[in-house]
Amino acid sequence: MTPPTSVCVLYHPRVDGRGDRLAGVDSVLAKLGVSSWRHERDAGSSAISQRMRGTSLVLTLGGDGTFLFGARLAGPHGVPVLGVNLGRLGLLTELEADGVEAGLRRFLAGDYRVEERTLIAAALVRGEKVRKRSLGLNEVMVHRSPSLKLIRFEMAMDGQRIGTIDADGVLVATATGSTAYSLALGGPILEPTLSDLVLVPMNPFALSVRPIVLNPNVEVRIKLASNAASVVTDGYLTWAAEPGDSIRVRAFRRRLKLVRFGPPDDFYRILREKIGWGTPLVPRPHA
Amino acid sequence: MTPPTSVCVLYHPRVDGRGDRLAGVDSVLAKLGVSSWRHERDAGSSAISQRMRGTSLVLTLGGDGTFLFGARLAGPHGVPVLGVNLGRLGLLTELEADGVEAGLRRFLAGDYRVEERTLIAAALVRGEKVRKRSLGLNEVMVHRSPSLKLIRFEMAMDGQRIGTIDADGVLVATATGSTAYSLALGGPILEPTLSDLVLVPMNPFALSVRPIVLNPNVEVRIKLASNAASVVTDGYLTWAAEPGDSIRVRAFRRRLKLVRFGPPDDFYRILREKIGWGTPLVPRPHA
Amino acid sequence: MTPPTSVCVLYHPRVDGRGDRLAGVDSVLAKLGVSSWRHERDAGSSAISQRMRGTSLVLTLGGDGTFLFGARLAGPHGVPVLGVNLGRLGLLTELEADGVEAGLRRFLAGDYRVEERTLIAAALVRGEKVRKRSLGLNEVMVHRSPSLKLIRFEMAMDGQRIGTIDADGVLVATATGSTAYSLALGGPILEPTLSDLVLVPMNPFALSVRPIVLNPNVEVRIKLASNAASVVTDGYLTWAAEPGDSIRVRAFRRRLKLVRFGPPDDFYRILREKIGWGTPLVPRPHA
Amino acid sequence: MTPPTSVCVLYHPRVDGRGDRLAGVDSVLAKLGVSSWRHERDAGSSAISQRMRGTSLVLTLGGDGTFLFGARLAGPHGVPVLGVNLGRLGLLTELEADGVEAGLRRFLAGDYRVEERTLIAAALVRGEKVRKRSLGLNEVMVHRSPSLKLIRFEMAMDGQRIGTIDADGVLVATATGSTAYSLALGGPILEPTLSDLVLVPMNPFALSVRPIVLNPNVEVRIKLASNAASVVTDGYLTWAAEPGDSIRVRAFRRRLKLVRFGPPDDFYRILREKIGWGTPLVPRPHA
Repeated sequence: MTPPTSVCVLYHPRVDGRGDRLAGVDSVLAKLGVSSWRHERDAGSSAISQRMRGTSLVLTLGGDGTFLFGARLAGPHGVPVLGVNLGRLGLLTELEADGVEAGLRRFLAGDYRVEERTLIAAALVRGEKVRKRSLGLNEVMVHRSPSLKLIRFEMAMDGQRIGTIDADGVLVATATGSTAYSLALGGPILEPTLSDLVLVPMNPFALSVRPIVLNPNVEVRIKLASNAASVVTDGYLTWAAEPGDSIRVRAFRRRLKLVRFGPPDDFYRILREKIGWGTPLVPRPHA
Repeated sequence: MTPPTSVCVLYHPRVDGRGDRLAGVDSVLAKLGVSSWRHERDAGSSAISQRMRGTSLVLTLGGDGTFLFGARLAGPHGVPVLGVNLGRLGLLTELEADGVEAGLRRFLAGDYRVEERTLIAAALVRGEKVRKRSLGLNEVMVHRSPSLKLIRFEMAMDGQRIGTIDADGVLVATATGSTAYSLALGGPILEPTLSDLVLVPMNPFALSVRPIVLNPNVEVRIKLASNAASVVTDGYLTWAAEPGDSIRVRAFRRRLKLVRFGPPDDFYRILREKIGWGTPLVPRPHA
Repeated sequence: MTPPTSVCVLYHPRVDGRGDRLAGVDSVLAKLGVSSWRHERDAGSSAISQRMRGTSLVLTLGGDGTFLFGARLAGPHGVPVLGVNLGRLGLLTELEADGVEAGLRRFLAGDYRVEERTLIAAALVRGEKVRKRSLGLNEVMVHRSPSLKLIRFEMAMDGQRIGTIDADGVLVATATGSTAYSLALGGPILEPTLSDLVLVPMNPFALSVRPIVLNPNVEVRIKLASNAASVVTDGYLTWAAEPGDSIRVRAFRRRLKLVRFGPPDDFYRILREKIGWGTPLVPRPHA
Repeated sequence: MTPPTSVCVLYHPRVDGRGDRLAGVDSVLAKLGVSSWRHERDAGSSAISQRMRGTSLVLTLGGDGTFLFGARLAGPHGVPVLGVNLGRLGLLTELEADGVEAGLRRFLAGDYRVEERTLIAAALVRGEKVRKRSLGLNEVMVHRSPSLKLIRFEMAMDGQRIGTIDADGVLVATATGSTAYSLALGGPILEPTLSDLVLVPMNPFALSVRPIVLNPNVEVRIKLASNAASVVTDGYLTWAAEPGDSIRVRAFRRRLKLVRFGPPDDFYRILREKIGWGTPLVPRPHA
């Protein structure tokens, strides 16, 4: 395997308060003979897309939010992402702060697994024209915010009408996102390898409306019947949608590449330790 | 397309109280020049499997229960199934009683779609030996019945331990089964085209235990820690499992073929009309 | 019973587009020999409280929102409320538009039931001082809005700490409010006669957090650990709360009086017809 | 306060394997000058009711199941119950094994609180005649068991029809029972001081059917439309009900007296420690 020619170091601005964290990563990369470039989380630049093409790895320094930012940058270009956890305990990051050099050595030696994750793509459509596009790793949410009133929207799958719903909103999550906010809304857990999306109505007033797991080939169309709404990707990027607007959501054509060093059996361990799945209560009733 | 050489007419015993329903179907088949053989629902026979090999279609006369019976017979042999609804309104049947002749003509002319559905396979393992095997279209359930006490079981996915659960039981459903009993247990809806299974704990006492959508390649292993239990396939076939037994569940390697005449967009219409998904309530709060 | 000396006609501003609706009610009241005064919904006035003291009935013209407004005005003074439905189908209003005269005649004749409903009182506390107070008929909600991030709050009951929750917010509803927004959040239904409140966490990230039905004597204290939040009473009145603020919620000492003409058995009929409780689906699984 | 003349020592048969546990309690009682009589859990006797009339305290030795048994015996006679935990960690018991003497001294000195709990009473009605009666501290459940098919039942409150439900069954719980099996079925938590009952449908196939909190004066009537069912009180006493039978459930007219030594603020601590209410997960999404 040819060594990477360039690593993008994507960092959370608060990570480098004293200026030595990034310098340390730079010196590791220099020692390993790898060129690199830095990009600050949340900074926009028209040149990023072009730079990403010649990049072999996105290394994120921060928490899960920084990892999500890196995934959105790297995803369209097929560049793998490796997360270093400098925040609280991360679900998505692979390395702790003291493991950067060892991790980069393994990556350069090709001693890693690639785990693929489905990304989610959204478009804001107004008057039959696409006005905005976004890409996420966790979810796309259409929400009544900042209004406090329920919104009414019509939903269709590949043009096939599902129905009209009154709710706080609707969320479409990837398998990765199924253990994030979607879970708090009552959504099911999807194994991270799955390409399916899951549609989760947010506090629907019709009690019979339940989450639906969708074929990854399906396009969801959410039309705002009469209310404005916020469209939020990964809890981060927000659009203001107007009455009559449609939001189209689907699985992105290209899957994200995650760099992993451990065995592929971590998912259920994380579920048990972080989500509390499968820990029996004491005492049991009627036992 | 070569015309079918043989149709299996699978009927519910109560269907033919006056003896003329089956005779009518027979005369239609004769008129169309098709040979056929009859099999009564719930009747077992060691010769069925061999007969099924030379069969081109299973035509079920009854309700959804008869259709499920036909699916379990036809599934392993790749024989398509066509359901005639003689019960209450069916979710799985394609024809009403007066549409048999027209439907068979279309089938013989090749004027139909094949819709594939994933089947679910279970095995009862005792002392490392498989004692029983079953095949279902809807679900496999491990349940405390007839006891009234919660049961404790350990779960693993492809050998990877998930955890220990105290519950009334656990159910693993196909996409087809996701709108049957699974839904009442809080499971998500899966689009019928999906190959995934969904694992739904039944009234778990640990509140953080949620449904999980599984990759179709995964084998679920449910081990009874200390209780006896019933293992039920499609609400029909029941085994008595003992403490220490394991139940292995996975997607069957071959998908079931359903004969369909309508457009492929029926699913969300059925969801709306039968399950009440997407019908807003009046009045709305805060609207 | 002494005839009322004064009726407050509380109206939704859009009700009287052509000016004849209110005039019609006025002429009915005049014909019945009842003095009256008008108040527009949403209008504030320091004189209302004093006027309410000499008032025998609040007659609301509008939908459920107008009725809620009337309940908040009338509640502290023990004045009964009678709702005329000029909106869509109302849950709280007792009369339709063409029944005003007949209804008023029955009220004047004492030919009615008084149904009591518990009101909910909230206070915003900053630095140990009560800064604001509100009264509601449905619910008090503490919500992350307009932020999109979960908020963390600490909860206590009569000074007894319950725990710390990360969620979209928390809602405390009356029995009347239990069939409004609370229901969409997963709250239980409370019979309208009950004085209890129900505390419903809004999409809590810890899955084991469940609704709690509270003794009406209990004071709930919700302290914002580190986030700002909106405090909303009856989906209408909104306060901006700051990090460190506490919100105190309890059942109001005086119950609201509703004027009812029908038998007291309407609740379960409404539940069935409006919420869909107790309408079996067809077909049933495994039936 | 007059010292008790007699203590009923109610014990789980497995408690006294070596014969010295009961002897120890007897000698403590003798030392304190208190007369006592023993009763083994699960043993029936027509004389118990009469003996209970002259009894001042039921002391239970065992787990929560033994406490429930004691509550059912003591409840109708207004005799207080004090639980000694000899099982796993108990929710209902007040003393650990080594605290029996100190606890009895405090009880004799009147140094305790009485905490009242609502009991639940059920009757099986066949052909308008009451055939059986039961009393429980946790819940009464009507369940399809041992059948695997959903049952259909009609429900009424004080004769007012609610509707028809297809489900695994229905459970009516007291506040005490709301943190037992009811919780696993999706029921809300009721503060233990509340007299209300909560009706929880068990896995209803109609998704809009939700738990209802009932006024303690209400009588619930559950009529089996066409299926047999099991009626189970406190997970212990089971009746076989036939199609057409009705089960009547209501709060018992007399509340149970629990002997408590600690402060009355234990409930939310137990909720946090045993049920996991109010323990935030790490990491939070979007935080």
